[in-house]
Formats: sequence, C-alpha cells, structure tokens
Amino acid sequence: MGANGYGKDGVRLVLVRRHADHHELRDLTVNLRLEGEFAAVYTEGDNSPVLPTDTMRATVYALATEHLTGDVEDFGRVVAERLLAATPAAERAAVSITENRWTRLSPGGHPHPHAFAADQGARWTAHVTVDRPDTATVTSGIAGLVLLRTTGSSFTGFRRDEYTVLPEAEDRILATELAATWQYRPGPTFGGFAATREAVRDALLDAFAGHDDSRSVQHTLYVLGQAVLTARPEVERITLRMPNLHHLTVDLSPFGQDNAGEVFVATDRPYGVIEGTVERPA
Amino acid sequence: MGANGYGKDGVRLVLVRRHADHHELRDLTVNLRLEGEFAAVYTEGDNSPVLPTDTMRATVYALATEHLTGDVEDFGRVVAERLLAATPAAERAAVSITENRWTRLSPGGHPHPHAFAADQGARWTAHVTVDRPDTATVTSGIAGLVLLRTTGSSFTGFRRDEYTVLPEAEDRILATELAATWQYRPGPTFGGFAATREAVRDALLDAFAGHDDSRSVQHTLYVLGQAVLTARPEVERITLRMPNLHHLTVDLSPFGQDNAGEVFVATDRPYGVIEGTVERPA
Amino acid sequence: MGANGYGKDGVRLVLVRRHADHHELRDLTVNLRLEGEFAAVYTEGDNSPVLPTDTMRATVYALATEHLTGDVEDFGRVVAERLLAATPAAERAAVSITENRWTRLSPGGHPHPHAFAADQGARWTAHVTVDRPDTATVTSGIAGLVLLRTTGSSFTGFRRDEYTVLPEAEDRILATELAATWQYRPGPTFGGFAATREAVRDALLDAFAGHDDSRSVQHTLYVLGQAVLTARPEVERITLRMPNLHHLTVDLSPFGQDNAGEVFVATDRPYGVIEGTVERPA
Amino acid sequence: MGANGYGKDGVRLVLVRRHADHHELRDLTVNLRLEGEFAAVYTEGDNSPVLPTDTMRATVYALATEHLTGDVEDFGRVVAERLLAATPAAERAAVSITENRWTRLSPGGHPHPHAFAADQGARWTAHVTVDRPDTATVTSGIAGLVLLRTTGSSFTGFRRDEYTVLPEAEDRILATELAATWQYRPGPTFGGFAATREAVRDALLDAFAGHDDSRSVQHTLYVLGQAVLTARPEVERITLRMPNLHHLTVDLSPFGQDNAGEVFVATDRPYGVIEGTVERPA
Repeated sequence: MGANGYGKDGVRLVLVRRHADHHELRDLTVNLRLEGEFAAVYTEGDNSPVLPTDTMRATVYALATEHLTGDVEDFGRVVAERLLAATPAAERAAVSITENRWTRLSPGGHPHPHAFAADQGARWTAHVTVDRPDTATVTSGIAGLVLLRTTGSSFTGFRRDEYTVLPEAEDRILATELAATWQYRPGPTFGGFAATREAVRDALLDAFAGHDDSRSVQHTLYVLGQAVLTARPEVERITLRMPNLHHLTVDLSPFGQDNAGEVFVATDRPYGVIEGTVERPA
Repeated sequence: MGANGYGKDGVRLVLVRRHADHHELRDLTVNLRLEGEFAAVYTEGDNSPVLPTDTMRATVYALATEHLTGDVEDFGRVVAERLLAATPAAERAAVSITENRWTRLSPGGHPHPHAFAADQGARWTAHVTVDRPDTATVTSGIAGLVLLRTTGSSFTGFRRDEYTVLPEAEDRILATELAATWQYRPGPTFGGFAATREAVRDALLDAFAGHDDSRSVQHTLYVLGQAVLTARPEVERITLRMPNLHHLTVDLSPFGQDNAGEVFVATDRPYGVIEGTVERPA
Repeated sequence: MGANGYGKDGVRLVLVRRHADHHELRDLTVNLRLEGEFAAVYTEGDNSPVLPTDTMRATVYALATEHLTGDVEDFGRVVAERLLAATPAAERAAVSITENRWTRLSPGGHPHPHAFAADQGARWTAHVTVDRPDTATVTSGIAGLVLLRTTGSSFTGFRRDEYTVLPEAEDRILATELAATWQYRPGPTFGGFAATREAVRDALLDAFAGHDDSRSVQHTLYVLGQAVLTARPEVERITLRMPNLHHLTVDLSPFGQDNAGEVFVATDRPYGVIEGTVERPA
Repeated sequence: MGANGYGKDGVRLVLVRRHADHHELRDLTVNLRLEGEFAAVYTEGDNSPVLPTDTMRATVYALATEHLTGDVEDFGRVVAERLLAATPAAERAAVSITENRWTRLSPGGHPHPHAFAADQGARWTAHVTVDRPDTATVTSGIAGLVLLRTTGSSFTGFRRDEYTVLPEAEDRILATELAATWQYRPGPTFGGFAATREAVRDALLDAFAGHDDSRSVQHTLYVLGQAVLTARPEVERITLRMPNLHHLTVDLSPFGQDNAGEVFVATDRPYGVIEGTVERPA
C-alpha cells in the first residue's frame, strides 16, 4: 500500500453569534483530511485506526461555538489539532476552509442587527496542516476575485512558430479570476490573519488598477505579487493563479462598422492559465 | 407541426465605451428566440424563411455600439424589432438579457478610469417580446439576490398529516436566493428602467430587513411584493421566486452542548420553492 | 395576491428491492408542487392551509416501498393524489420525476445480484399533474440524449440579411442534446409507460441515424417526431428540444493543411436552440 | 520569481476520420502546460521566450490529423514534444487529455457508418509530461465511473471519540465515483494503452462486483488496486480516488413502517473522500 489519505469534503457550517444588540454570521465550507499509518485499513479491512469521516464532520460542529471566534486559520488549526489528537494512527491532519462572506444590510443607512446579503464575489480561503508532534503550516488565500482592465494591457514580441497565428496586440482587455494563496514569515508580528487578508486584497486591487503597462498576464502577476510583498512584511511568498479570460474583438467590418476596441465576445473555453509564486530574495 | 420556435442562447457581449477620461463597461448574456410561420422548415426542409441563429447572434454585436447606450430593456427591444423586421415569417421575437455588473476600482478612493472588479452577486435581467405588427412587452428583473435573516422568522401553525414530522419553529434562519421579475403599468411615467430596478432592489432589501415577524417564506414574499408596489407606482405586478435555503440546527446534545440557535448546517438539496405574483387590485 | 405555488425540489430517493436472489435499484430525483387557495398564507401569515414542504418530501419516502413498484408515472400519480388529499386548500398537485438509471454489472457475463454502474446518459423523466377532483395529466420524457452525425446534414438556402455572414454548409456535423416529452392519447391501450419510453427512444435513435438528408435541425426534429408518432399510436404529441451543439471547422490553411471536414472545435456558447411539437392531425 | 507555469485549458478537439464505408469519431478536451526559464517574462515583461497559449491551442489542431491515430497517450506525447521543441525556454511540457467517448448507433442491429450517441459515463484520461532533453512520463486513467453495491458492505469496529455518533453498519450501500490513474513498468511489453485501459476497467468492475466482504471504502480500494496489478503486469502502480457517496437510511418509523435497508436518501454534501495508491512490492 502506497501513499493514502481520507477525510470529508463539503462540510457546511453556518454560525450565528447572538449578541444582545446584533448577530454575527459566519459561513464556512470545510474539507478535512488525515494521513498516517493506515495501511492495515486497506490491506486487512481493520478499521480500528480509523476515525470515521462522520466524526471528522461532527468535530467541526462541536468545536464551532467555542473556537470559531476569529480568523478561520485559527479555527482550522484547532480542528486539525483535535483530529490529530483523536487519531493516534494519523501523522498529519489538514483542514481547508472557504469562508463565504455576508454583508450586513443597512436599511436607511443603519446597520441591521440580523439581516444579511451574501457577498458572492471573492471568498476567503485557508489551509492548515498540522504534523505530529506539533508543526503547523498555515496558508491563507483569496479566491474568485474577478478583475478586468479595458486598456493598458498589451501582448507583443512573443515567440512565433509555424502554428502561431495570433496577432500582436497593442491594446487588449485583460481579465482574470484571481486566486491568491500566501504563507507567512516566522518573524514579523502582525495584526491577525484577517488584517493581512484585507491588506493583501487591497494591495492586489490597487496594483491591478495601477499596472497600466501590462505586457502580459505574467507581467501583471509579478507586479501584483511584489505589491503584496512590499505592503506586508509578514508575507513570505505568494502564489497567484490568473486564468486569462479571453475577450475577443468582434469583426464588425462585414457590417460596415469599425470596431476600435469596443465590441468583444467573452469566451468560456479554452482559456489561458498563468500561475506563479513571487517570493522574497533568499 | 405544432408550436415551435428557434433561436440562440448564450450570446456573450462585452461593450467598452472609450470616453476621453474614463471607460464604461457593459457585460451581457443574451438569449434570442423567433416564433411564427415556420412549419415548412420542419416538414419540408425549406430553409428560405429561416434567419440563421448565427445571424441572430451577429445582430446583437452589430447593434451594440449604436444601441446599447442605456437600459438593457431598450437594447433588447431594438434587437427584437430588428429580428422581426429581418424575418418575414416570424410573428414574435423575444430577447432575454442578463446583465453581469462590474464595479469600478477605486485605488486611494479615486475612481479608476478603466479597471473593474466583477459584482458576482445579483444580476440584472430583462425580457422583451415584440409581436407583429408592433406590440412590445417588457419584463424587468433581478436574479441571484441571496438574503438571510438569523432571527425574526418562524414557521408554526401549519397543517399536519400522518407524514408530518417537522417541529414547529418559533425562531429559525430564513435564507433565500431571490429572483424578481416585474411588469409595468401603461400610465405612470418613470425615470427609466435602471432607476426602477435600483429602487425595486432597495425596496426588496429594506422590506426583507424590516420583516421581523415573518411567519413563512410566503408571508415575507408578500411583504416584499407589497413594498415594491407601494414604492414604485410604475410597477404593475411583481413575481417573486424565493427558494427556502434550509439551515438545519445541528444537534449538539451528544457532545454535551446546548445549541441555542447558533450552529447550523446549510443544505443544498432538497430545498423549498415558494413562488408568487403580487399585483395591484383590479 | 396573484398566481402562486410552493413545493420541494431535489428530493433524492434511492430504493432497493431485496429479492431473494437479486436486488433491484431505483434512483429518483423528485420535484413537488401545490397550487390552490393559499392567498391568506401570503397576505395574513396564516399557515393553517399549508402542508409543509418537509411533509411533501417525507411523503415521497413514505410511499416508496408500497408504490414505487413500476413506472415512475404511476408513482408520481400516487404521490400527487396523496398531496392533494392531504391539503384541502390545494386545487392542483404536480410531481416531476427524473429517473437516473443504473446498469447491473455482469462479471464473467453473469448478471450480478447487487452491484451496479450508473448509466450517466439519457435520463427518464415524468411529469404528473392532478387537478381536483380527479383529473390527471401525464407527460413522459427522455432527457440528456446526446447525438451526433458526422455527415448527411446540411444547412443551405436560408434567409440572408446584412448581418448574415454564415456560409452555406453542404456537409456539416449535426450534434444535439435531445430532450423529448410526450403525452398520451386517451384511447389506445399500451404496455405501460416504460414500454412506450423504450420504444420512443429506439424510434428517436433510429430516425436520427436514418435521416441522411437533414436540411436543418428543424428538419430532423420533424422526422424524429413523425417517427415516434408512427411507431407508437398511444403517443398523442411529442415535444422535442434540440439545441444545436455547434462544431466549427478549424481553419488549418495557415499551417498548409486542407481540412476536409476532419478537424473541428466543439463550442459551448452560444448554441442554437430548436424546439417544436409534432402532433397528430386533428 | 519562484515556481511558475503557463498554458491553455479546455481545448476542445473533435476529429472525424472519413473512411470509405464509415467514419471514426474522436472527442478530446486538452489542457497544456509549459514550465522552464520564464522568470524574465514576469519580472521584465519580456515576452520573447513565450510561445503564446493560442499557439499551444493551435498546435493541438495542427497535429490532430496526422497524429491522433490511436491512443491519446501517444497523441499527448507528440503534442508535448512539439511544444518543448518550439519553446527553447521550456524545460517541461505537460499535456492532459480527457477523451469523451461515443458509441456508434446500430439501427436494426447494423452499425451505422456516421451516427453516434455520447457515452456520458466514464471518461478516458491521460497525462503526459516530457522533460528536456527527452524523458517522458505517461499516466493513464479512467474518471467518472459511478458504482454502487446495495449490500456486501459494512463499516464497523472503527475508532470512537466523544464526537462519534455514527452507528456501526453491518450492511450499507457502498457508492462511489471512481477515478483511477496508473503508471507503467519500464519492462513488460503490452498491446497499447487502449488495451490496458479496457482491461483495467474490466478488472475494476469485476473486483468491485466481487468484493462481497467490503469492510470500508479503503478495503475495497485496495482490492480494486490489487486486482489491476494482478491482471496487468504492465501497470506499475495505480492511484484510486473513491469518494464515499453517502446513502442514508430514511427513518420511516414515524410512519409505522420498518425500513430494512430499502429506502435511502442520496446526499450531495458532505461526502467522504478516500484516496490511495496500490503499488507492487519494491
């Protein structure tokens, strides 16, 4: 029996904190995984080392009230540590969390105590791995941030071979659905994962808006990564995934119209994929 | 040959208006349909009456620059009228538009001239039908508005039969993904479809937040519909679809915990569906 | 309060019949709806007429063992009648069923008593409406039947306007994801809904394969519908939805290659939509 | 700049071979990736090393007629080698292919020359990586094989902690959507990738049907893996992903019914995930 692991995906937790004058709302989707000395489970059908995935699920709910009090990274770590403690055969527990965010409604400009609308855009993500005896690795992230520039983006001077028909583009739409994940430097103190995440998002948005000389998705990816490293000393490295969501200029010449970068068709497939990690110099 | 129709679905149009100091961005998905005297196309294989669906698609792009200058309802009507004019066999043209919305980025608080982030929440919708010789019906809408109240919602006093195991709920989460469509009164002038839509959305959000005595999804649906009719005299009737996105209280008693409306599991399937039209008295 | 209705969608039922020497497996997704005199539920918050959607869900499970013994149409009718009987305010109950099908595994050519693989292709569908006092309407269907011809399909002689750039196609790929629904004549006896459905599917497949002179999707749609009406006297009318899943010939001339109808790109959006009902002469 | 890569996802290729008396149909979705010395693309905006993703896409179409003559693994290798040859900066090219399969229609029992229905079940997969100067790694696979046993599966004797509420199950439904990937031993000759794949699938199906004493998903996973290694000497190791698609026994006791493993609700989320590699002894 080679490498193996097991767990539960898609655990949906909604937590309401009922304060005297208002409610707080948290909404998580959690994936859980255990790895370790489980070979006999496979080869012998011996279930004695196996903490059931149903228990892994229940653990999320059982720990929520007491421990989901702040950052999802912290909650993820508590869950991972508990799973590891409850499962002697496990050498590693991993917890991945996606936080769906909600905005408090504000009728008449007054924040409402208990009514919310879903933020359906970017999601907060976290991935915590705890290895025995007690080494935790925390990765934070943002996913689903869809960005578009209508100008200030080119793609020229690229390599050509006999199958290259793409024309040089001096001015094109640049659109992406950005997913970022980052890890932390051991040293610098910081104001908590949420503070970093908000700041990373702001840095990404500002850098995306500001990069008016984008020569490629790659070029912008690097500018975004550098902006984050510059803004946040606690970030050790950041990995960015930036699919190139193609917008093709429609040929309107058959209809006697010029199309000076105005009318586009947004396509689903295929799409470019650009991925890279920007890290501090060693 | 009985009733029939044909058209094109999923036409993706992105339009950029390049003003001197800023760009405007529009992003539509358009479905197109023609109905009329097309029986011979089916029975004889006679294509002479058929405007190709590819031409229907091209029409959207060809008309965009000149006619997508304001409300999608107006653009939809222009497209529908053009399709009808180009197709003598057609008696009816229908155009359905979903507008995906984008928010201008504002680095440092300054609106950026050409960088945007996608609003991935509620979408604007419009459905325009034009019948020969020239009768237009316009329906406007909002889809994908996900709302949740953590309290102020009950479900009690319902009918019970031998298969009813649901307990009465004095205080439950009420969550829905609201879709609204409405039609217009012939009389009252108004400030344009966009103004109505923004106002309808505000009325829906305020009424949802304000309905602290919800006795059912149906009850809240009616309050929402009435709020719109009260706020906007130009709206003749409004149809609301409000799935009941169930949040089940997790039983924590096996873990020695009380769960006083704090820990919930959000479920995908099955889900309740509540639909109704609220209209003005005849 | 105008038109309204409520119910439960996405009720998943798996039924295992444990016979002595083999098991039978059924797998349904059920949607349920009630309509009638429910205005006070909306306007007054009076829940007394409302059979909860949770009870509607439970009814499916409670009736399964005794009543899901054969065709889904018959089971749907039993469920609809029960919902109507249990809900005095209701005037109509509607039940939509999709049956996901499984194939018994046959290791060594021997049908296995209790191991199955999912048929992930065409799904059986049924829609039963029962109106008070006792009028049932039954619609049967097949969905998700993906078909493709590599030749024997053209599209020429169509109407052209100034936005028509589509070339005439003497020989093209014809691909569709067919969905068919049909209703029954009052008179002719028949061997049960399943027998009709199998025969309808065979008639559709044979007619699709045999239509070597397809002049359009519409043309083939009609041939398919006629084939069903000819083969099955119990079918009163059949509605076919046949999206045109476009396969575009790739231009290989820049690479010095001729593309004589060999290399295609299958596209997702936009896609053509062709819908029509073929019925018997009055 | 740290690790990085780029490419194109979702390239859809349909190939028709027009033989004299029949047509062959192939239907692939291809993902392409390049890695290597591209740091300056990111840091300097220097595009000269970059083969455009559009060229990567075009390469698939340009090579199809000549090279997609047999196994997708062989076609993938040709594409990967070409991409590497065309891109001096690249150190690695990776090509992932999913083959969607079609079944020839057989009206009247006669195989039709050019009409097909889509097999919407299991898909063939292949992943080929070529590293400079010329080292290829080939992984073959099957995805989307949905299997279910109605009995002969238990889950007992597992570890319990204070959050464990799952009862022991002596007889439960075992359902999964199996995905398998395997790699090849350098030595043994074999009859081609397709022959192995068909044989692997048969071994998986037979072993799944035959494992009447399943003590867990893990246990069955191992039996499946061993069956493949036993049947096919050319397979070096096989990785199986087997989500546990939960089927919950419905409590019918409130309705006065016993439910002796007959009525189940199939759930979507959460679901168990079991993954493992079965390999030959070193």
